[in-house]
Amino acid sequence: MPLEAVADPKIRDSIVARVASIESIDANRFRVILELATATTGGDVTQLTNMLFGNCSLQDDVELEDVAFPPELLRHFGGPRHGIAGLRALVDAPERPLTCTALKPQGSSPQTLADLCETFGRAGIDVIKDDHGIADQAYAPFAERIRACHAAAERASASTGKPVVYAPSLVGSPRRIFEQGERARECGIRAVLLAPMLIGLGTFAEFVSTFPEFVVLAHPAFGGASRISPVWLFGKFFRLLGADATIYPNYGGRFAYSADVCHALAEAAREPWDSIRPAMPVPAGGMPVERVGEIVAFYGTDVMLLIGGSLLMAGDRLAERSRTFARAVVQGV
Amino acid sequence: MPLEAVADPKIRDSIVARVASIESIDANRFRVILELATATTGGDVTQLTNMLFGNCSLQDDVELEDVAFPPELLRHFGGPRHGIAGLRALVDAPERPLTCTALKPQGSSPQTLADLCETFGRAGIDVIKDDHGIADQAYAPFAERIRACHAAAERASASTGKPVVYAPSLVGSPRRIFEQGERARECGIRAVLLAPMLIGLGTFAEFVSTFPEFVVLAHPAFGGASRISPVWLFGKFFRLLGADATIYPNYGGRFAYSADVCHALAEAAREPWDSIRPAMPVPAGGMPVERVGEIVAFYGTDVMLLIGGSLLMAGDRLAERSRTFARAVVQGV
Repeated sequence: MPLEAVADPKIRDSIVARVASIESIDANRFRVILELATATTGGDVTQLTNMLFGNCSLQDDVELEDVAFPPELLRHFGGPRHGIAGLRALVDAPERPLTCTALKPQGSSPQTLADLCETFGRAGIDVIKDDHGIADQAYAPFAERIRACHAAAERASASTGKPVVYAPSLVGSPRRIFEQGERARECGIRAVLLAPMLIGLGTFAEFVSTFPEFVVLAHPAFGGASRISPVWLFGKFFRLLGADATIYPNYGGRFAYSADVCHALAEAAREPWDSIRPAMPVPAGGMPVERVGEIVAFYGTDVMLLIGGSLLMAGDRLAERSRTFARAVVQGV
Repeated sequence: MPLEAVADPKIRDSIVARVASIESIDANRFRVILELATATTGGDVTQLTNMLFGNCSLQDDVELEDVAFPPELLRHFGGPRHGIAGLRALVDAPERPLTCTALKPQGSSPQTLADLCETFGRAGIDVIKDDHGIADQAYAPFAERIRACHAAAERASASTGKPVVYAPSLVGSPRRIFEQGERARECGIRAVLLAPMLIGLGTFAEFVSTFPEFVVLAHPAFGGASRISPVWLFGKFFRLLGADATIYPNYGGRFAYSADVCHALAEAAREPWDSIRPAMPVPAGGMPVERVGEIVAFYGTDVMLLIGGSLLMAGDRLAERSRTFARAVVQGV
């Protein structure tokens, strides 16, 4: 609102946002630092988002680049409940890069998805998640699907002697998401996939605090990354709200992020940040198995590689190609 | 996923999206029409959004422009529970353009906001909403604030003999939003303000079906309009999910939409659409009272004008300026 219309001096002094600095970046762009009063957030994730990028998101030429949180807000939101260390403990791999793949296509029956899950698990892949497009559809109802896939992962684990983690995709209105969480808990499932922007950032944070036992993989779907910095949104904000691992489109794949953006995003997810646990960066999106060596060299060992389509294209040679993927990452080949 | 990796012919035929047409618009842009299988949505708003613009939102050069829904999906989501007719009935104004203003700034006490509400109501303004930045903050706790403001609106209504509607802003995680809805219901409040993109589209739709008695004003905060067409998002999709009135930045104000976009948005909100009720277009954002005549001429009578800051800038002459606003719209001056 117009500053002239703010009559109360206390509000002008302690509530109205302040422009801390304006810095010219190039001929057309400026970096503007605003200071917001933490009291305006009411300690709520949704209202925090409202303050950070509510109406500003409607300005075509404004991008939200980064946020510096005071320690009390960091501790209030809490970040990952498990983080990189908890994810590593779950798959019993304390140091090496991890592997991840996706069950798809949607339209497949629970049995088909479970068979795929078992093949991937026996091949030595650490985390097997549902494709994020798999929800609660008539052709693969949620409860039946997760029971079948989790049992398949358990069988693969028993056979190989190595933990295999199945992470179902939870999608829906808040009521459905929480019901799906209950079903997953009953099955003994330990990890889940959630898309925070799709289900709502407040729903995501509420889910994380309601189900602290799940290792949470965050998916970028509906993230509209061009208006909010993907480094901040997927790297830092998803982490702050409790993502233990954050999935994003890797450079050189079918999405458009540069190597610089991906590097910065991975650093944002795992760099020291007050009391907030590191979250695992999960590069994904159209990567062939042949790129494993290059990608691990780029990110180092605190990374989980997510390869889906490139495995599924192998057809009859799926198990072999999955083993190649798992081995390449495990052995550093 | 790569089409080669989809082995099941039933999935290729009935689940995989189809490219219906590709049309060149100009040297750099194409209009591409995709056909999606309704079965992939599982009848859920969040999953529908996932299918419409999940990973595509990550593509810098893709914009979601419009969606043609089959009648069964329209009826399933249902649209406004009250629509333009219900909003008009609530404020007892069957034909003329309506008026709306906002209580602000945040940081004000419940008493200050209630006094403002009473002033606006006595001036003849139809709907008095909270600023969307007002949530559940320590300086104005939700329950106390809505009781005070609703009582003020009732006093104004008793004094003028004309309905005055107070619409509180509900912001927060799903649990908080639903609790706030319960408190508003207990107070006898009849209209609420929700920002669907901020709280999550699924949360919004679930709220609308849980509280069908509220007339729902949709706010565009966090709408990131450059990647999803604002005409579609604020005009059609918010309407489909149950917004009775949809607020958007008007042309010529402090936001960047063109007159053409605003006109198309208003038409999208109120044009005939199968069984879906019309929603009231609510242009807003930095409009002075002096523009009332022009704006009404532009939109016609099915419109609610939302003016906030321009009234509040009047300082001591707030009541007079509010009356001028209400009269200009009522009398068509």
